[in-house]
Amino acid sequence: MNNLESKLIEWRRDFHRYPEAGFLEMRTASIVASILDELGFQLEMGKQVMSPGYCMGKPNKEETEAHYQWALENGAKKEYVEPFSEGFTGIVATMDTEKEGPTIAFRVDMDALPINESEADSHFPQKEGFRSTVPNQMHACGHDAHTTIGLGLATLIAENKDSLKGKIKLIFQPAEEGTRGARSMAEAKVVDDVDYFIASHVGTGVPDGHFVASKNGFLATSKLDITFKGVASHAGGNPEQGKNALLAAASAALNIYAIPRHSEGATRINVGEMHAGSGRNIIADRAVLKVETRGENTKINEYVKAQAEAVIAGSAQMYGVEYEIQTVGEAVSAQGSTELAAVLQACADESPHIKASILEDDSPAGSEDATFFMERVQQNGGQATYCVFGTELAAGHHNEKFDINESTMLAAVKVLFESIRKLN
Amino acid sequence: MNNLESKLIEWRRDFHRYPEAGFLEMRTASIVASILDELGFQLEMGKQVMSPGYCMGKPNKEETEAHYQWALENGAKKEYVEPFSEGFTGIVATMDTEKEGPTIAFRVDMDALPINESEADSHFPQKEGFRSTVPNQMHACGHDAHTTIGLGLATLIAENKDSLKGKIKLIFQPAEEGTRGARSMAEAKVVDDVDYFIASHVGTGVPDGHFVASKNGFLATSKLDITFKGVASHAGGNPEQGKNALLAAASAALNIYAIPRHSEGATRINVGEMHAGSGRNIIADRAVLKVETRGENTKINEYVKAQAEAVIAGSAQMYGVEYEIQTVGEAVSAQGSTELAAVLQACADESPHIKASILEDDSPAGSEDATFFMERVQQNGGQATYCVFGTELAAGHHNEKFDINESTMLAAVKVLFESIRKLN
Amino acid sequence: MNNLESKLIEWRRDFHRYPEAGFLEMRTASIVASILDELGFQLEMGKQVMSPGYCMGKPNKEETEAHYQWALENGAKKEYVEPFSEGFTGIVATMDTEKEGPTIAFRVDMDALPINESEADSHFPQKEGFRSTVPNQMHACGHDAHTTIGLGLATLIAENKDSLKGKIKLIFQPAEEGTRGARSMAEAKVVDDVDYFIASHVGTGVPDGHFVASKNGFLATSKLDITFKGVASHAGGNPEQGKNALLAAASAALNIYAIPRHSEGATRINVGEMHAGSGRNIIADRAVLKVETRGENTKINEYVKAQAEAVIAGSAQMYGVEYEIQTVGEAVSAQGSTELAAVLQACADESPHIKASILEDDSPAGSEDATFFMERVQQNGGQATYCVFGTELAAGHHNEKFDINESTMLAAVKVLFESIRKLN
Amino acid sequence: MNNLESKLIEWRRDFHRYPEAGFLEMRTASIVASILDELGFQLEMGKQVMSPGYCMGKPNKEETEAHYQWALENGAKKEYVEPFSEGFTGIVATMDTEKEGPTIAFRVDMDALPINESEADSHFPQKEGFRSTVPNQMHACGHDAHTTIGLGLATLIAENKDSLKGKIKLIFQPAEEGTRGARSMAEAKVVDDVDYFIASHVGTGVPDGHFVASKNGFLATSKLDITFKGVASHAGGNPEQGKNALLAAASAALNIYAIPRHSEGATRINVGEMHAGSGRNIIADRAVLKVETRGENTKINEYVKAQAEAVIAGSAQMYGVEYEIQTVGEAVSAQGSTELAAVLQACADESPHIKASILEDDSPAGSEDATFFMERVQQNGGQATYCVFGTELAAGHHNEKFDINESTMLAAVKVLFESIRKLN
Repeated sequence: MNNLESKLIEWRRDFHRYPEAGFLEMRTASIVASILDELGFQLEMGKQVMSPGYCMGKPNKEETEAHYQWALENGAKKEYVEPFSEGFTGIVATMDTEKEGPTIAFRVDMDALPINESEADSHFPQKEGFRSTVPNQMHACGHDAHTTIGLGLATLIAENKDSLKGKIKLIFQPAEEGTRGARSMAEAKVVDDVDYFIASHVGTGVPDGHFVASKNGFLATSKLDITFKGVASHAGGNPEQGKNALLAAASAALNIYAIPRHSEGATRINVGEMHAGSGRNIIADRAVLKVETRGENTKINEYVKAQAEAVIAGSAQMYGVEYEIQTVGEAVSAQGSTELAAVLQACADESPHIKASILEDDSPAGSEDATFFMERVQQNGGQATYCVFGTELAAGHHNEKFDINESTMLAAVKVLFESIRKLN
Repeated sequence: MNNLESKLIEWRRDFHRYPEAGFLEMRTASIVASILDELGFQLEMGKQVMSPGYCMGKPNKEETEAHYQWALENGAKKEYVEPFSEGFTGIVATMDTEKEGPTIAFRVDMDALPINESEADSHFPQKEGFRSTVPNQMHACGHDAHTTIGLGLATLIAENKDSLKGKIKLIFQPAEEGTRGARSMAEAKVVDDVDYFIASHVGTGVPDGHFVASKNGFLATSKLDITFKGVASHAGGNPEQGKNALLAAASAALNIYAIPRHSEGATRINVGEMHAGSGRNIIADRAVLKVETRGENTKINEYVKAQAEAVIAGSAQMYGVEYEIQTVGEAVSAQGSTELAAVLQACADESPHIKASILEDDSPAGSEDATFFMERVQQNGGQATYCVFGTELAAGHHNEKFDINESTMLAAVKVLFESIRKLN
Repeated sequence: MNNLESKLIEWRRDFHRYPEAGFLEMRTASIVASILDELGFQLEMGKQVMSPGYCMGKPNKEETEAHYQWALENGAKKEYVEPFSEGFTGIVATMDTEKEGPTIAFRVDMDALPINESEADSHFPQKEGFRSTVPNQMHACGHDAHTTIGLGLATLIAENKDSLKGKIKLIFQPAEEGTRGARSMAEAKVVDDVDYFIASHVGTGVPDGHFVASKNGFLATSKLDITFKGVASHAGGNPEQGKNALLAAASAALNIYAIPRHSEGATRINVGEMHAGSGRNIIADRAVLKVETRGENTKINEYVKAQAEAVIAGSAQMYGVEYEIQTVGEAVSAQGSTELAAVLQACADESPHIKASILEDDSPAGSEDATFFMERVQQNGGQATYCVFGTELAAGHHNEKFDINESTMLAAVKVLFESIRKLN
Repeated sequence: MNNLESKLIEWRRDFHRYPEAGFLEMRTASIVASILDELGFQLEMGKQVMSPGYCMGKPNKEETEAHYQWALENGAKKEYVEPFSEGFTGIVATMDTEKEGPTIAFRVDMDALPINESEADSHFPQKEGFRSTVPNQMHACGHDAHTTIGLGLATLIAENKDSLKGKIKLIFQPAEEGTRGARSMAEAKVVDDVDYFIASHVGTGVPDGHFVASKNGFLATSKLDITFKGVASHAGGNPEQGKNALLAAASAALNIYAIPRHSEGATRINVGEMHAGSGRNIIADRAVLKVETRGENTKINEYVKAQAEAVIAGSAQMYGVEYEIQTVGEAVSAQGSTELAAVLQACADESPHIKASILEDDSPAGSEDATFFMERVQQNGGQATYCVFGTELAAGHHNEKFDINESTMLAAVKVLFESIRKLN
C-alpha cells in the first residue's frame, strides 16, 4: 500500500467515526479546510460560498449551536471551524496554476445519515474499530469516501501543480442527503466560471472496478413540509368553533395522491408522514404533512409540485385554516455532457484500477442535487457530468451494514486526476 | 252543502286538474285575479309584488314562455293572465274597509309538484274525474286547497266588508315548494304595513278536525346548485392538461358531509345529486351538485351554508376549476307570536268545525318560506303565526295518492274569517 | 373546624400530592382500603370487583409494574396494595348493618389527569404546599375530593352503624377519565344487589353551595383507537409495492366526519389525532387514529359507532391494509330516578351547608361512566341518580389551576349520609 | 381505375352510409357474408365464432332487436342476416387451398362511432353523397375501409386460390371501439390454429403512402361500469336511514385517482363520468361511475384494475351499499413478431403504392383489442403483427369530419395479399 492509499484510508476512517448530518459537517469541514490550506489551496468557506436563502431543511439555531459545541469537543480543527459555526459548511478550494487553461471543478459531499450503525462483528468498521461514535448517525452512503477522494485528489493536484494548467476548484458540499445543500452553493455562483464540472459517487450498484462516465436519469424532486394551522375547540361542546387542521391535511393527502399522471414522463408523489391533533376530544388545530414530488425532468416535477400546492391551498380554504409550505429539499434533472464523459471514460479505460466502463447510463435513478451545479455549468456553455465508481458493497446504501471496498478511493482519485491532464 | 262549500269544492277541483309548477302558476293566478277583481279587491300583480332578484330557482325564459302558451290554451283568464306571463305569478289583493283598524294579511300558496298522479280507481280525484290532466304535475301537497281557502276567505270578506275595519291583504304566493317564492314578495315589501300575518296549511299529520294555532319548528334552509367548470382532455393521451371537475365535485361532496355539527341546534346537509363528465376517457370538464343545508334556526343554517361555500371554493381551487353557486331556494326559521296564536285558537275553539286545538307545536318540521314574511312582520313590530288545519289524508304529502278531506276548506275559511273579527 | 372536616382536608391534600392515572390508583386505593378496613367495612378489591375483559384503555404491563414500584416508594400501604398491583384498582366496601333494609350504594372515583399542575404562587395547592409531586399528573377534576368524600361518608356510617338498616356499599372506581373503568365493575355485578345508587361530583359549573339532585344529559360515548397496518415501500422506487396506511387513515378520517346526523337526537364525532408514516419517501405502513363518538342516548351512539366501524373497515379494504379497532373508553346515557332525586333534594334542602337546590337538570353534558352502574341498577328495578355539589372553582375542570372550595366536602358527606337515613 | 379499386370504393361508401355500432353490425356483416360466400369461402358466423360470456358492453336485448328491424329495413342481406340477429356479429371466413402450408389470418373490424357526421359542403362524404344516413352514427375511424379491405383481399385470394397454399382465414370482428369484441372471438378459439396473424389499420397519423409493419405500444386497458345501490331516505327527516350511494361513489372516485404509479411502466386511470341521486333532499340510493384503467402492459393494467376494484369494494363497505362492477371493454398489450413484420415490410417495400416503411414503432398508443388475438397466436407458437397503412386524413380519428384517401384501400389489399405469397 502506497503512502497516498494509507492516507486515504486513515482520513476515511476518521470521518466514518465522526459522522455529521447535513449543514452540521463542522468537524469534517474544519479538517478538510486544514488539509487543503496546508496543500496550498485558496479557501472560500461558509457564507462566502453558500447563499443562505437557498439552504433547505437546515437545522434550527439551537441544534446548530449545540452541534458546534460537539464539534469543538470531538476533534474539529479549532483554527478552521469558526466559518462553519452557523451551519454553512460548504468549502470551495481553488488551485490556480497561473497558466492559461480551463477551469475544472470537482464536487464531493460530506454529510451522513440518521442511521444507527451496526454493531455486528461481521461489520467491517466495527471489526476494525472505526464504527460511528455517534448514536443514530452513520456514513451509510459513502460520503466519507467522497470527502476523502476530494482530499486525495487535492494531494495529487498540489504535488503536480507545476505540470498543470488553468484553475482547479474542489467543491465540498454539505447536505446532499435530502437534496438540500447544492442549490445554495450554485446560487452563490461558485461554478459560474467553470468549464468542466465533474461530480462523482461510489457504489450505487455499479460492480466493483466498473466505471460509469455519465450517470443520467436522476429524477427532479421537491421535498415539501406542509403545516396547517387551525383553531382548537372542544369536539363535544363546540364543534362549530373549531377549524379542523386534521381534516384539511387528510383531504390534502388524499387529493395529492390523485394528481394526474403526465404524458411526457414518469412522476412520483408521496405523503410519507402525517401528524395531526393533540387530543381525542379536541378539534385538531395543527397538522403536518411530509410530501415528496418527483418528475422525469424538471418541468414535470414543477407540474406535480404546482398541483400539490393548489391542492394544499384548496384544502386549507375548505376548512378555513392557514397553511405554510416549506421546501426542505429540491433537485433538478440533468443530462451529462457526452464529450466530457468520453474524456472520463478514456481515463478510466487507461487506468489499471478500472476493469470495465460505460459511457452513459440513462436508467431511472433517485435524486441528486449535484444537478443544480450541472445545469448551471451547462447553461453557461460549460460541460458537466456525474460519474460513478463501482465498488463492492457490504450492504445497500442507507443500510446499517453499508460498507465499501476502500481501494475504490485510490482508483477514483487517479482517474479524476488523469481527467485534469486530459482536459488541460 | 251550502253555496260557499260547493263553490270551494268546484274551485279546488279545477285547480287540481290543472296543476302548475312554481313560478308558472299563470292559469291559477289569472283565475284567482279574476275572482278577486269581481269581489272588489284591489289587485297588485307580477313584478309589482315580486322583487325579481330574489326569485330563486325560477324556470328559464324558454320554459316560461312555453308554459304561457299552455296556460292560454288551458283555461287561463285572458284578461288577467298577462301580468304573470314572465313567471312573476304572485298576487296581493287588498280590501280596504276605509275604517280605522289593523292591517291583517293572509298568505296562501298555489304551486304543484312534479309527481305523476295516481290512476288507481280508489284514488278519489281519479274516481271523481278531477285527476291532474298534466303528466308529472300534481297538487300533492294541498296548495290547490290553500288557493281555494284564500278565495273562500275573500268571498266572506267581500260579503261582510261593511262590518269590518282596517285593511285585509290576501297574499297568493308562487313557488312555495323548494322555498323559492316567498322571499321575492317579502323583499317587495308586501307585508311591511302588516299588523297581523297569518299563514296556514292543511294536513301535515294533524288529525282531521284538529287545529294548531302556531306551528313552529321550521328549519331554516338553503338549496344550492353548484356547477364546476374545468377543462376536458384525453385521459390517456394528456391527463395533465385536464382540469378535473368530477374530482372537484367528488371532493366537495365528501367534505360537505363532513361539516361539523353545531352545538346550538340541529343541522342537516345533503348532496342529493351529482352529475359529472361526458365520456369514460375524457377528463370531466363539468360537474353539478344539488345541495341542501338546514339549521334549527337561521343563524345555524347560515353557518352550515358558509361552511359549504368554503368547501366548494376550496375544492375548485384544488383542481383549478371554476365554480358557480346558485341559491335556488331558501327559508329562515320563525317562531309564531303567541298572542296572535291565542286569538286563532279562540276562534277555532268556538268553531263547530274544529274538534280540538293546540296553541303551539314546537316539534321539528320541514321548511317553509312563509317564514320570510313572518320574520319581516315581527321585525316591524307586528305579530305573525303559521297555523295548521288538520285533515284526513288519503296518503302522505308528496305522494301520488295524496288527497284531503274537502270539508276542511270550509272550516279553515270560517276560522280565518272569524280571526279578522277578533283582531278588529 | 371540627375533627371530621380537618380529616377530610388532610386526606384530600395527601391524595392531591400523589395523583395517579386511571388503573394506576394503587397508592390511593391502598390508603382507602386501609382506612375502610379500620372502620370495619368488608372489602372486595381488584379482580374481585372488576371484570378484566371490560377494562378499557388500561396501561400495559410494563407501565403498570413500573407504577407499582413507584407506589411502593411513595406511601402506598404495603399491607393493602398487593391486590391492586396489576392495575385492577377498584374497591367495594360494604357495611352490613345486619338489620333488614335496602342496599344503598355510593360511587366515587379516584383517578387524576395528565396535566402539569400550576406553580403559580396564587394557586392554592402551591401556596399551601400540597401541589402535585408528580410531573404531568394532577387532580384537576376533583376526584381527590370525591375519594375523600367517600372516606368521610364511611366514617359517619361506621360511627352510626347501630342506628342504620340494610347494607351500604361504597364503590371506589378507577379510571373515570376517558370513561374507562366503571363498566368493568358493573360487569363484575357489584351493583346487582343495589336498591339505591348515588353517584356524585363536585363543581361542574354548579355555584358554590348549590345542589343538583339529578344531573341528566350525559351523552353516550365511545372512544376508539384505530390502527392501520400496511406495507412500507420506497415511494420513488416501488410505489406499487406499498400498502398505504396513511391514505387508509386519511380516507377513514374524512368519511367518519361524513357520518349522517341522526333524526332522534344530537350526535358528535371527532377524529382528534392522526399519526402516520415514518419517512417522507416511504409509503406509510402504519397509521393511528384517535376517535370519539357521542350520541344523545346509547342507541344513537351505537349507531354512530357502527357507522364509524364500517368506514374504517371500508378504508382498510380500499388500500389492502389491516386494521384494529380498540375501544378504550365507553359510557352510556342515563336518566336519573326522580323519586330518589327528590329524597336527595330533601336532604340538601334541610342541610345548613346547601343554599339552593335543583331537582333535575337535563341540559346537555359531557360523558360519565357512572351511567353503566345507573343503567344496571335501574334495569334490576332499583333507583339511581347522579348528583352534583356545587363548589367555587379557581379555574375550570381540567385546567392547571383547577381548585375547589374544600368545605364542599363536608357538605357532601353530610347530605349523602342523611340520604341513607331517609332511604332506610 | 381498375375494376377492383372501383369495387372497393363502392363497398366502402355503402358501409359508410350505413354505419352500425358495435355488436349491431348486422347489415354490414350480412353483406360481408354474402360476398364471401359467393367468393367460395367457408363461413362461420355469430355464436359459432363468439363466446357470449366474453362479449363486453353489449347492447341489451331490446336495443338489439330494434336494430335488427332497422337492418332488415335498410339493406341487410336477408339470407345472411339471421345468424347476427342477437348481436353476435363476427364472421370467420376460411379459404382452404387444400395444399400443405401455413394458416394465415387477417383481422378487420366493422363498427362505427356515436358521432354525428359533418354536413359541411367541404366534407367529402357529404359532397359525394355518401354521408351517414343515421343520426349520431358515423364511420369516423375508418372501419368501413377496413371491412372493405377485407373484402378486397378475399377477392384476390379467391381469384388466386390455385396458386396459394395452406389456409387463409379472414376475421371480421365486431365492436373494436371500446375494445369490446375481440376477446369473445379469441375465446371462441378462432385463431388457435393460426401460424401468422396480421391485423391492420389505416391512418393513425402515419403519412399517406407510408407503412408501419409492426405498430407496438398499445396500452392494456379495462373499461369498468360501476353501480352502487344504496337506500334512499329523506335527508331532513331521517338521514340515518339512508345508505348513501353518492358518497360511496364520490369516495371511490377520489381514491381511484389515488392509485399509486407503477415502477415498471406508465399507467392511466380515469373516472370519466359520475351520475348519482334523484333529488336534492333525498339520500342518493344509486350512483354510477364510468372508469377506465390503462397500463403499459397487461400486468400493469391488471394491477391498476385490481386496485380500483379494491377501492370500489371498500367504498361500498364504508357506506353499507351494494355494488356491481361490469367490465364493458378490455384489451391487453402486445408486441409484434419482428420476423413477420419484416415479411410485411418487404412486401411494402416492393409495392408501387408504398413510399416509405418502418419496421417497428414502439411509441405509446391508445388501446386495441386485436391484441387478444396476437397474444393467443404467439402463446401457441405463431407469429403476429399489427400493421398500419398511412393515409391522408381530412380530420383526426373520431372527428365529425374524419375522412381517408380512398386509394389507400387498394394499396393495403395488395400488400396484404403479397404477404400471403411470401409466407406460403
